[in-house]
Amino acid sequence: MKNVSFFLFLLLIIPFSVNGQTLQEKLGYPADAKLLIIHGDDVGVSHSQNQASFDAIKNGLVTSTSTMVPAPWSAEVAQMAKEIENPDIGIHITLTNEWLHYNWGPEAGREKVAGLANSIGHMYPSCAEVSEHASPEDVEMEVRSQIQTAKAMGIDITHLDSHMGCMFFGRPEYLRVYVKLALENKIPAMINRELYQGLIQPNPDLFAGINVDKLPIIDQIIMADEEAYEKGMDKFYTRALKNLPAGVHVILIHLAFDDQEMNAVTAGHDSFHAPWRQQDYDFFTSEKAKKLIEENNIKLITWREIGKVL
Amino acid sequence: MKNVSFFLFLLLIIPFSVNGQTLQEKLGYPADAKLLIIHGDDVGVSHSQNQASFDAIKNGLVTSTSTMVPAPWSAEVAQMAKEIENPDIGIHITLTNEWLHYNWGPEAGREKVAGLANSIGHMYPSCAEVSEHASPEDVEMEVRSQIQTAKAMGIDITHLDSHMGCMFFGRPEYLRVYVKLALENKIPAMINRELYQGLIQPNPDLFAGINVDKLPIIDQIIMADEEAYEKGMDKFYTRALKNLPAGVHVILIHLAFDDQEMNAVTAGHDSFHAPWRQQDYDFFTSEKAKKLIEENNIKLITWREIGKVL
Repeated sequence: MKNVSFFLFLLLIIPFSVNGQTLQEKLGYPADAKLLIIHGDDVGVSHSQNQASFDAIKNGLVTSTSTMVPAPWSAEVAQMAKEIENPDIGIHITLTNEWLHYNWGPEAGREKVAGLANSIGHMYPSCAEVSEHASPEDVEMEVRSQIQTAKAMGIDITHLDSHMGCMFFGRPEYLRVYVKLALENKIPAMINRELYQGLIQPNPDLFAGINVDKLPIIDQIIMADEEAYEKGMDKFYTRALKNLPAGVHVILIHLAFDDQEMNAVTAGHDSFHAPWRQQDYDFFTSEKAKKLIEENNIKLITWREIGKVL
Repeated sequence: MKNVSFFLFLLLIIPFSVNGQTLQEKLGYPADAKLLIIHGDDVGVSHSQNQASFDAIKNGLVTSTSTMVPAPWSAEVAQMAKEIENPDIGIHITLTNEWLHYNWGPEAGREKVAGLANSIGHMYPSCAEVSEHASPEDVEMEVRSQIQTAKAMGIDITHLDSHMGCMFFGRPEYLRVYVKLALENKIPAMINRELYQGLIQPNPDLFAGINVDKLPIIDQIIMADEEAYEKGMDKFYTRALKNLPAGVHVILIHLAFDDQEMNAVTAGHDSFHAPWRQQDYDFFTSEKAKKLIEENNIKLITWREIGKVL
């Protein structure tokens, strides 16, 4: 995910409730509990990302991940998941292919969802291009195909989220598809209160026929942006953990090793590239992060746990 | 390509001619000329293979390559080709996906050519499985799609050949598709005299309506197998170059670096894996190989040159 710095509302401390009870209370915790999902995005793209993310789940602090089904290494995710008890793996809905020379096309096939494939059959690099070309029907068919393939790979899908946020920042109808397919599959979709209050709640017509009250809404999505990377990831994550308010929060991180494969994949990019991802791995497998979580009374949870209240 | 050791007829020295004139003579060389294409297979699969192959074209002895269009790094091949004058790049027709956790599906889309995709949408790992599931119609549609995509990527296709030899060792009708599409595109398809005399010539019904006399037939396809690898690639290639008879020959090699990416891609395999490919790179960029070619009066040619006599 990129360009979502407006998601960063670290100072919002008013507990959010849709039906009188906060999500943390629905999950069986007190209203002042600080619940956190540490989510490693983007598995499935490279072996480097798979290795780093699963290592950080097994030996570090990462609680959850979500897989990019159309990407070349997605079958390995299903294999690696077998080594973990109750793995928390969602679908990182993938409508884009942002890397210069490392490509994939839509899971449903370039002819079936023509709006999601460029002239050589690959996905477009940006959400803006997706919105320009892909109908909500294309997107729905593609998401269904990604869910179907993940199940065929043997993944017990715990949640939906959205690579680069295209389901949120694309056409408003994409968000309807996102909400609809989460409820249909009886799994949560990552939605924070800002998305809910800004796009879902005020658009009853768009969500007609969908029981949005059944959605679990989290408080914050916290993610490092270019500025955070420049100023130092350690500083950014330390501050995020120290200032975490009561509520249910997700930190989105992007783990990989700064190795030859990852540098090849992310060549030509100066953000979300190999060294950036190595820093995410380093911080969330560190003793320092472990202590920060303990000292600040942060309780790590999973989407699987949230899914149970649906 | 694997399991093609029966291709290795290093001692065949009777010049082959279909219409009274040998291919080397048609190309403007004397009948006793030793013409050789040094062909780097499998570009498009990884950045490591692309880098090693193009480096060996620019700085080593490799004259030709062919790209695996459905694989993740195929767009980079088109980019790298721009750095070379008259690059000799064919379609390495890809019907399989033999790596454990690094996958791709058919270029035409899993629903359009259902016989070429397994239950999770990836290609099958072996030619035998392809033959079991894929109709000749599936294969024709897929090859057309790979040709179309390569052209859309900007590749000036000089020839066809076949990854793992599935077009040769699969259903006999696949070979008809191979020959038909080469002639239709006015480019050579890699066919040696053994394939011609064993499968094409004795099956006039299968090739009805196709002017097989227009095919340029090469003498030998030389490729290292597991035994050659065990005994030493240097020894195998040295012998091949020293004993090369008059005629038109292709040495198929598989270049990559023995790096982290390539080891990840080829994990679980003990042939055609990263160290094997590094040895191919090392030999065909060496001063020793250069001298062997000079000392044995071997003339390096390309498929582009052969294509001109069509």
